[in-house]
Amino acid sequence: MRMIGPEQLDSAVLQLTQSDVLSQVQNDVLLSSSLWVNIALAGLSILLFVYMGRNITSGRARLIWGATLMIPLVSISSYLGLASGLTVGFIEMPAGHALAGQEVMSQWGRYLTWALSTPMILLALGVLADVDRGSLFTVIAADIGMCVTGLGAALITSSYLFRWAFYIISCTFFVVVLFALLFEWPVSAAAAGTDDIFSTLRLLTVVLWIGYPVIWAAGVEGFALIQSVGLTSWGYSGLDILAKYAFSFLLLRWVADNEPTVSSPASNTAESGAVADD
Amino acid sequence: MRMIGPEQLDSAVLQLTQSDVLSQVQNDVLLSSSLWVNIALAGLSILLFVYMGRNITSGRARLIWGATLMIPLVSISSYLGLASGLTVGFIEMPAGHALAGQEVMSQWGRYLTWALSTPMILLALGVLADVDRGSLFTVIAADIGMCVTGLGAALITSSYLFRWAFYIISCTFFVVVLFALLFEWPVSAAAAGTDDIFSTLRLLTVVLWIGYPVIWAAGVEGFALIQSVGLTSWGYSGLDILAKYAFSFLLLRWVADNEPTVSSPASNTAESGAVADD
Amino acid sequence: MRMIGPEQLDSAVLQLTQSDVLSQVQNDVLLSSSLWVNIALAGLSILLFVYMGRNITSGRARLIWGATLMIPLVSISSYLGLASGLTVGFIEMPAGHALAGQEVMSQWGRYLTWALSTPMILLALGVLADVDRGSLFTVIAADIGMCVTGLGAALITSSYLFRWAFYIISCTFFVVVLFALLFEWPVSAAAAGTDDIFSTLRLLTVVLWIGYPVIWAAGVEGFALIQSVGLTSWGYSGLDILAKYAFSFLLLRWVADNEPTVSSPASNTAESGAVADD
Repeated sequence: MRMIGPEQLDSAVLQLTQSDVLSQVQNDVLLSSSLWVNIALAGLSILLFVYMGRNITSGRARLIWGATLMIPLVSISSYLGLASGLTVGFIEMPAGHALAGQEVMSQWGRYLTWALSTPMILLALGVLADVDRGSLFTVIAADIGMCVTGLGAALITSSYLFRWAFYIISCTFFVVVLFALLFEWPVSAAAAGTDDIFSTLRLLTVVLWIGYPVIWAAGVEGFALIQSVGLTSWGYSGLDILAKYAFSFLLLRWVADNEPTVSSPASNTAESGAVADD
Repeated sequence: MRMIGPEQLDSAVLQLTQSDVLSQVQNDVLLSSSLWVNIALAGLSILLFVYMGRNITSGRARLIWGATLMIPLVSISSYLGLASGLTVGFIEMPAGHALAGQEVMSQWGRYLTWALSTPMILLALGVLADVDRGSLFTVIAADIGMCVTGLGAALITSSYLFRWAFYIISCTFFVVVLFALLFEWPVSAAAAGTDDIFSTLRLLTVVLWIGYPVIWAAGVEGFALIQSVGLTSWGYSGLDILAKYAFSFLLLRWVADNEPTVSSPASNTAESGAVADD
Repeated sequence: MRMIGPEQLDSAVLQLTQSDVLSQVQNDVLLSSSLWVNIALAGLSILLFVYMGRNITSGRARLIWGATLMIPLVSISSYLGLASGLTVGFIEMPAGHALAGQEVMSQWGRYLTWALSTPMILLALGVLADVDRGSLFTVIAADIGMCVTGLGAALITSSYLFRWAFYIISCTFFVVVLFALLFEWPVSAAAAGTDDIFSTLRLLTVVLWIGYPVIWAAGVEGFALIQSVGLTSWGYSGLDILAKYAFSFLLLRWVADNEPTVSSPASNTAESGAVADD
């Protein structure tokens, strides 16, 4: 019953999707601009951040700088993956979904690369607030869990209920992250003398990050209230611009201006400084 | 020679497998129950562990708690992936295998998610025993190697010999883990004053973990002595219940009752506390 | 329009590629030898390194030994994946490429496993030079970015330009790694008293690592100046032999002979020893 030859099939799956996506992106200005704006801004951010961090020397400040620099580097790779069609697929929605039976473009690469970029944001915030290692570890692990189960929600085609089951698990991980950001880390930041900048960045992060699951639920992959792939893509892209490049810029400008404050370790981590770590 | 259209092929592979698995799971009570029992128990464990850890405050104890809480969170995601068909595939066994030429259901998602959950178990054990960083790092790296090469063994369809070659490499990684658990970490645990609970958890872990490669060898993916997919799945699920939720419960109950013992860093790690780490 | 049945398609993609590759490898002595020589050398290295490290006890020296031991363990898994066809695919080159429209064998598993093995090399070098945590973290994150975007470059079939866009991003990450190896880490190594062996290993690493992107550009996946898959594969395999096993052997022999030098933490990291880490 095999009607296509091995060589065709081998590469067909990978290639047809890529070519389809590439031409669909090129013919859709809204979708196309949502990707290329981020590629341009991520590229500029990389150059700017290298320049801004040129005089940072102390260990803890350099760790914040290194984590911050990774954010636009991961982001530019992510958006090149989307624009080339490598990390985008067409998913047939299951029965029960508003677009059931239709092929919907899923930018699944976003969820995958968030699992690399969002831990950098949390690492930078955590080191800034000088939180203890146990808290930092738990929050980053929960954050990765949030992204990976979000990827699961996006890729499930067998059942509408399972899509939302993964969505709920992903939000549960998110609640762990939110709880730490809102109630635990501010205490550490106050003790470390970084509470001013931490409060600003925390507010930015909490408000913007809540936007991602809202877009998922409203967009083509969730309830499909917004049925435009380009508009959904711009939703994520807009959040990325603020939560990644604007966030990083504010953080890095502060660190460059206040290096002595983050050079002296605070009391909070001294206690855990001698235990084994991963 | 291409007989199917691009759009069909694009999503066909992902979707057909998912739907096939979903219906096969739903029609097989043994298989179905092996997955849903774990989803229920993992969910209950998450709620219970959050409650049990509510009063833990010190850095090292919180790190153990955080790592322990991740175990059922990764597990519930893993089992939802299996139950939805997302991380399950049909593998045609190569010549030489007892079921050569037949399509066998492979729950490959198990091996992938073990690469996330088993490091948490080792991290919790290692911090409990207050082992030095070099040992903890090597053991966790070997553990991830064990899971990834186990995934390789499961996915190889080209050659029966290569399946067992990957199995042997995976077991070699496992021997590194076993060696540390049996001969190195007990010494650290004795110095840290946590040897009572460590001995219990170590025995539980060593005995149960040996069960996984035994089931692989006996089950449909290995020698196929047990040819029922449901029975093989229950083998893994039963081990998971004991090695994950029961293990975590015992560990967390002890940490909650003995927080002062794990709050004071022992001599073992003080030495390595000032060197660079990843 | 679906002309092939679900069960066929499900497993067809995975299996046809694996079988194709396996038979193509077995019929090509040049290609075959490039893989099996590494499997043999990695296996011997594992046994040798376990033996060489049997007397290493101090925390920092054991961490170097553990990281070094992982290098051939990851490598043997990588080459078994290539030899079995599991991590190899046929990619149809896009318009603009010298082999446009032709199916080219891509050993994409190399890029994936480099993301696991090269961080071990950098970790070993960084701990040897006693660099601070911020630098080590940034360099390893950049190194993983280099490998993952290299994987992207290899897998893109939709556009010739995008292949080179990913290549350039990958090289940008590489420049971060090179900069640290050439200008930052030597200062730390001098302070730590390990500059003799560090200089040797750094030279070896810098020269050999530059070879990888050169081979990519010259080989079948880039400008296709070398059109033989076997020759391209031998290029990578030869570099791996020197950059992985010879490198590890030199490092481990020195550590075994000079354990006291790496047992005492140097001033460089004492400062960062009390801050929060990942």
